[in-house]
Amino acid sequence: MMATNSGPLTGITVLDLTRVLAGPYCTMMLADLGARVIKIERPDGGDDARSFGPFIDKNGVKKSAYFMSLNRGKESIALNLKAPEDRAIFEDLLSKADVLVENYRPGVMQKLGYGYEALSKSHPRLIYAAVSGFGHTGPFAQKPAYDMVVQAMGGIMSVTGHPGGEPTRVGSSIGDITAGMFTATGITSALYERERTGKGQKIDVGMMDGQVAILENAIARYQATGESPGPLGARHPSITPFSAFRTQDGHMVIAAGNNALFEELCAALSLPQLPNDPRFKDNDARTQNWDDLLGLMEQQLTTKPTAHWLDALEAVGVPCGPIHNVEEALTHPQTQARNMVVQAEDKDVGTLGMAGNPIKLSNHPDPNTRTPAPDLDADRDRILGE
Amino acid sequence: MMATNSGPLTGITVLDLTRVLAGPYCTMMLADLGARVIKIERPDGGDDARSFGPFIDKNGVKKSAYFMSLNRGKESIALNLKAPEDRAIFEDLLSKADVLVENYRPGVMQKLGYGYEALSKSHPRLIYAAVSGFGHTGPFAQKPAYDMVVQAMGGIMSVTGHPGGEPTRVGSSIGDITAGMFTATGITSALYERERTGKGQKIDVGMMDGQVAILENAIARYQATGESPGPLGARHPSITPFSAFRTQDGHMVIAAGNNALFEELCAALSLPQLPNDPRFKDNDARTQNWDDLLGLMEQQLTTKPTAHWLDALEAVGVPCGPIHNVEEALTHPQTQARNMVVQAEDKDVGTLGMAGNPIKLSNHPDPNTRTPAPDLDADRDRILGE
Repeated sequence: MMATNSGPLTGITVLDLTRVLAGPYCTMMLADLGARVIKIERPDGGDDARSFGPFIDKNGVKKSAYFMSLNRGKESIALNLKAPEDRAIFEDLLSKADVLVENYRPGVMQKLGYGYEALSKSHPRLIYAAVSGFGHTGPFAQKPAYDMVVQAMGGIMSVTGHPGGEPTRVGSSIGDITAGMFTATGITSALYERERTGKGQKIDVGMMDGQVAILENAIARYQATGESPGPLGARHPSITPFSAFRTQDGHMVIAAGNNALFEELCAALSLPQLPNDPRFKDNDARTQNWDDLLGLMEQQLTTKPTAHWLDALEAVGVPCGPIHNVEEALTHPQTQARNMVVQAEDKDVGTLGMAGNPIKLSNHPDPNTRTPAPDLDADRDRILGE
Repeated sequence: MMATNSGPLTGITVLDLTRVLAGPYCTMMLADLGARVIKIERPDGGDDARSFGPFIDKNGVKKSAYFMSLNRGKESIALNLKAPEDRAIFEDLLSKADVLVENYRPGVMQKLGYGYEALSKSHPRLIYAAVSGFGHTGPFAQKPAYDMVVQAMGGIMSVTGHPGGEPTRVGSSIGDITAGMFTATGITSALYERERTGKGQKIDVGMMDGQVAILENAIARYQATGESPGPLGARHPSITPFSAFRTQDGHMVIAAGNNALFEELCAALSLPQLPNDPRFKDNDARTQNWDDLLGLMEQQLTTKPTAHWLDALEAVGVPCGPIHNVEEALTHPQTQARNMVVQAEDKDVGTLGMAGNPIKLSNHPDPNTRTPAPDLDADRDRILGE
């Protein structure tokens, strides 16, 4: 089935040489924004992610739900970029492409004769995006990296988890995903510029760079104090109270980020004296005296169940929420109303739900059904016939 | 000082009505990509983040390092959008702007007379981006949300942390930051489309939507099994071994994502028999028998320090790395070589280091120094004089 994506990038053709996650996440975003994405895969098995679990095993066919989620709305052709006949096909596709995305180790595309230096001469309008573990420059450029490595080396693991506890990974592959997102922004901004200048360019995103770019507050704390901050469990480092709390039957989060909200919160918890206590008089004082505040708040919160407190705090406008598991997050009325779970119908294993596009655009539809991820080489004949 | 940003968005003017994090992160990305960003702040104190720690207190002046990091390269003018004379200034700025970004609760801009419906008629080329807690539609649209709330409700907290442990927040404000990143991609893709159609549009990004969009593997697991996955500490849910491990003097991460790398790893750990053990014969088997594998690996790893194992595994090409704290991440030779810590010189408190731009573009410089964040209303006279 030919993908028919609609969006601001309609008319743009992306050649996608990427595998597994960072690159495919980027090109999924481009497809969701309307681009035509032609996934160019190795003939022997294609994208490694086709063999990564979890799998859906139905009707005698076993397919990776992981691969299917990341590659909806794309087309597939299998090409061996070392074989002359396949190189000719690739070069024909290149001549019609706007964007090429690759996530090889630096140097691999040069060896194939398709490095940016060469392509920029033959295809000056081409936008060439490379997403790699450490980027294309610097002493670590040639080193292998995966999400786990850049989460560790980029610092986010050092601020995630509980004080004194074991190392904790962010529970989704934020190293890959943020790199894919930055690459998508680079590509769309380069497409904008090309409309004005007629020229393409190279975009070089390193996954570890992306991790540094999202450290946020932790960098400011280090710069201000000279000390590396540690993990803080579920609380915010400098806004208080802004944390998870125990209730009678579980946990909830409360985010009372200023004095007015703190007063409302204290009234709702039957702790009206707290805002006048010097320990809690302003955000700085509350951050300094967090342990005291936590004790006093949980003394009240543990007397009633989460549902009670959600109602009580929402009634007075204090930001709060339950800690949803994945099912609760996906089936939540807001998630549903925002079309954040979309469906793709695979011809073999049936319908699969997957995350929708969080970029809602007024000029474009946001369909609830998407073209499914392609089988390996599924679009060869049609692509060659064009 | 006038910000002089250079990049693919040079020539684009962004009116930035946002505060604290998601919106300012988005407009920081746009400034890093060359846009002129005019920050429109409340006259009474401006962006709330000006009062958020950590602070730098030097030469008798105390400024928020947090605010300074997020607002480098922007200009500031203080306007009261309820006062007629300031509204006239705002409307004059609007007539010259390409993009407006706001992060009010839905409805606030309408009440001011600047809702998208109205502006799209008077300014059909305007790109209007709204980033909010839950987005502009759906039953939760009016509810307040902060990073903590969307991390909880969007599901990522449920997969971050250790099995059976306390709730764990991702250690940076990933709820805000990813929403800012998605908004930036929406804006750049709308700028591209406007070059072709002449028309602007509205971009509506909800922070909770962004959290669902980055759940990745966790959604696929839920779809494939019907069960919500839980937190897994520091290991990847379906690639094994891909985790943090204890060594003699601390921890390190190892990411051996396929059979070839697993064989190299086992040889380096003096465990050459493992790849032939049926429990560890392929990735699925290794994931099933993780506890056994962890025990065997840590028995070896705890005999020598991290530095020894990093050398040994790097020598055979097995992806691995140390778990850096923030200082180690920022001073790492690769971080430095990639210009991922840039400097801004504040006239009062001196030089501040902050995260650089992870989107490296071949047609544009990536300067190590940036224009500092503006004081409140610092650019009024120049802006009014234009």
